[in-house]
Amino acid sequence: MAHLLSSSCAVNLPPAIKTYFRPRNKHTTSCLSSFASRTPPIFTSCRRTLQEPNFVYATATPISKELEHIPKSGSSTNSNGPISKPKRVMVIGGDGFCGWATSLHLSNKNYEVAVVDSLVRRLFDHQLGVDSLTPISSIQNRIRRWKALTGKTMQLYIGDICDFEFLSEAFKSFEPDVVVHFGEQRSAPYSMIDRSRAVFTQHNNVIGTLNVLFAIKEFSEECHLVKLGTMGEYGTPNIDIEEGYLTITHNGRTDTLPYPKQASSFYHLSKVHDSHNIAFTCKAWGIRATDLNQGVVYGVRTDETTLHEELCNRFDYDGVFGTALNRFCVQAAVGHPLTVYGKGGQTRGYLDIRDTVQCVELAIANPAKPGEFRVFNQFTEQFSVNDLAGLVTKAGKKLGLEVQTISVPNPRVEAEEHYYNAKHTKLIELGLKPHLLSDSLLDSLLNVAIQFKDRVDHSQIMPNISWKKIGVKPRAAPVQL
Amino acid sequence: MAHLLSSSCAVNLPPAIKTYFRPRNKHTTSCLSSFASRTPPIFTSCRRTLQEPNFVYATATPISKELEHIPKSGSSTNSNGPISKPKRVMVIGGDGFCGWATSLHLSNKNYEVAVVDSLVRRLFDHQLGVDSLTPISSIQNRIRRWKALTGKTMQLYIGDICDFEFLSEAFKSFEPDVVVHFGEQRSAPYSMIDRSRAVFTQHNNVIGTLNVLFAIKEFSEECHLVKLGTMGEYGTPNIDIEEGYLTITHNGRTDTLPYPKQASSFYHLSKVHDSHNIAFTCKAWGIRATDLNQGVVYGVRTDETTLHEELCNRFDYDGVFGTALNRFCVQAAVGHPLTVYGKGGQTRGYLDIRDTVQCVELAIANPAKPGEFRVFNQFTEQFSVNDLAGLVTKAGKKLGLEVQTISVPNPRVEAEEHYYNAKHTKLIELGLKPHLLSDSLLDSLLNVAIQFKDRVDHSQIMPNISWKKIGVKPRAAPVQL
Repeated sequence: MAHLLSSSCAVNLPPAIKTYFRPRNKHTTSCLSSFASRTPPIFTSCRRTLQEPNFVYATATPISKELEHIPKSGSSTNSNGPISKPKRVMVIGGDGFCGWATSLHLSNKNYEVAVVDSLVRRLFDHQLGVDSLTPISSIQNRIRRWKALTGKTMQLYIGDICDFEFLSEAFKSFEPDVVVHFGEQRSAPYSMIDRSRAVFTQHNNVIGTLNVLFAIKEFSEECHLVKLGTMGEYGTPNIDIEEGYLTITHNGRTDTLPYPKQASSFYHLSKVHDSHNIAFTCKAWGIRATDLNQGVVYGVRTDETTLHEELCNRFDYDGVFGTALNRFCVQAAVGHPLTVYGKGGQTRGYLDIRDTVQCVELAIANPAKPGEFRVFNQFTEQFSVNDLAGLVTKAGKKLGLEVQTISVPNPRVEAEEHYYNAKHTKLIELGLKPHLLSDSLLDSLLNVAIQFKDRVDHSQIMPNISWKKIGVKPRAAPVQL
Repeated sequence: MAHLLSSSCAVNLPPAIKTYFRPRNKHTTSCLSSFASRTPPIFTSCRRTLQEPNFVYATATPISKELEHIPKSGSSTNSNGPISKPKRVMVIGGDGFCGWATSLHLSNKNYEVAVVDSLVRRLFDHQLGVDSLTPISSIQNRIRRWKALTGKTMQLYIGDICDFEFLSEAFKSFEPDVVVHFGEQRSAPYSMIDRSRAVFTQHNNVIGTLNVLFAIKEFSEECHLVKLGTMGEYGTPNIDIEEGYLTITHNGRTDTLPYPKQASSFYHLSKVHDSHNIAFTCKAWGIRATDLNQGVVYGVRTDETTLHEELCNRFDYDGVFGTALNRFCVQAAVGHPLTVYGKGGQTRGYLDIRDTVQCVELAIANPAKPGEFRVFNQFTEQFSVNDLAGLVTKAGKKLGLEVQTISVPNPRVEAEEHYYNAKHTKLIELGLKPHLLSDSLLDSLLNVAIQFKDRVDHSQIMPNISWKKIGVKPRAAPVQL
């Protein structure tokens, strides 16, 4: 598949939608970059608000047919030929970075989508005084805009899945065939701020997932749970990392057992707890579940988010929610040295946000069997932090940026030089066509960062949460204004 | 070491206490059985209340010196000779079955003991309408009685460790050198009653333990955490179970990793979560911790609980809190068939309550190093459920009981025929002298059950909590009176 983000938004739209777009010119700047840089937008709709009339209209043609690389879309057609009822997918955490991109993608593929979200991620931004590099619209406006653009509706349920009464009402109302569960506190540093955040993270994530499992058992037993885990569950063992299970021969006997877990923050631990809880309910209750042990996601744009500024996804660069590659791009854009933690040999799996949405769709289209607890390692390439710093430095130079790298004391407790070789073939076997990290994507990411550099709060770039210094008192110093 | 329970309470007392006891006769019935069967007690104090004068007085002589089988007591003497300050041990859950026996034992060994307990276990009894086979005193009277008997004080802190303010005050007040943490909801069936109990169990256990870890980091960094885990964390893999870790060679590389976990109830899972959380804090903060993966505990009497009826330990036989062997003894005593779940090939590790207290003392006396997460498998013998039923049947016959065994549908989801071979050498290497299950212990246990058989509520014997039928609604049927 081509690297969509490096070319124009119009070129890469699914054909069924493209027909209805009216580009003003042939400028290849993408929709997202255009509204940011205040150059003329490709589509006039890009800068409109919901109150203005749109001239980008929906199509009812199943868009999923148009993209041939997905073997089964699970939507309006199936391998037996006849049109089937579209699958109903509840996306918990559908307002977040991965969740929003996934919700749009699945809706675009003609799944019936419901977004379930407490919006607490937006509250964290307010409380910590951080913000997405890219301006993001409210979830209400996002969904309204999506409908205005495509005619496709998404249900929206705002509430906390730790509140079982809310969750059960949402289940009974929407009747999902699939639950995609991103609805967790997802930052390792956030979970290491203080005791109350550590406890919040584990309570929120573990109890929320327990509630989802109970809701599936009670209301929708056939429902397939697609749960976002993390590659961080495995830690950095000195042997190859397999996908969820390891066949072990010991003292002459052999068994295939869950791969040993060594998580390194209260957040990562919460995902380990989830995995164990889910595995048990698959065995005890016959739940069907796919655990997507995802790597570090980079990028911001997908086919759908580029359609309109109000669909734009969030882009975190701060020391709490920012992840390595995105953060480096912002640092390069604003002339801040790239901050490598410690020796920089920390190696992890990475993937493009466009592959996140593709992977989730593949998991949905090829569901786990009843009682099966299936684990996919969801990443496409491995890099060390030093590798990434090198790539960003090189890409920056091409754009005339002078990029420096500094090593800062590692706020985390982690091996800085280690063996790392993690398998990631199962999603490839299902049809994943990876968007590998390329010069053009890095150019594009750096351009996004440059376009929004006036929005960067320099005081949020450096890490200020220490794994060793976490204390029991709520971190409540007076806010620096 | 002799099998204490099968002989008299007086004979087995530590000599320093024995001096002060005034046995009325040489009858070898134990203190516990005597007050139950309403035969004359060995010690007149056995039937006294706190208001009555005692003639069993304390000794200040370090009792720990008298029992030579413990290599290091960690109390008033150490291997270097000079008298050291006694270690201060906080026993969280010190009012429970294992916790009370351990508190007494450690106090007897001249440790400074504080009991921390919310007493919620007693609330569960009230709510479920179940009760200990043996009558148990309040924790206040237990501790007063212990002081009256031995002169030894125990601090008592009543509160919930999920309430961090309470826990931190208890830490600051007592300043523990060791925390022995039994303070968890410890019943697998309880955790499978309904959604709210599942959530309670995981929240209570995981957050309580997180709070303990934070309290140690903040207030008492050198403090050694001795945490009660369970053999159930491992499940029933088809390979040998090691003690916490497994050395794995895979694709030509080797690493020693946490042993894979396959827990089979929300309770057992909570212990798996705890283990992962503790392991992380050992690595990140340098916490020193010992995880005691305990087997199924049987028996009721220890050297200390037999001293007085008010020190008597609880004995659970009901379908929620009762464990296999104790429950079988009660069933045999009241003429109820032994209820084997399913095929009865379920094999687990078992140990005598006297070995529980011995193991905890050994862990304390030989602490983990800073940053070390040490795992001991705490059991002494393996039995299948069918093995136990056979042993109880045989022992019952000797006492003139006609014991029948029935298979009932297994309320759990577990393998009923499986390989099981778990290592348990580390505590032996530290000096554990096991009390193996013997005819005489079974006689004694059956005698306890016979003596208290009028207290048995037959309606509580059968299992009525199903792993598969657990639902989301609070189980709130009208109570049968």
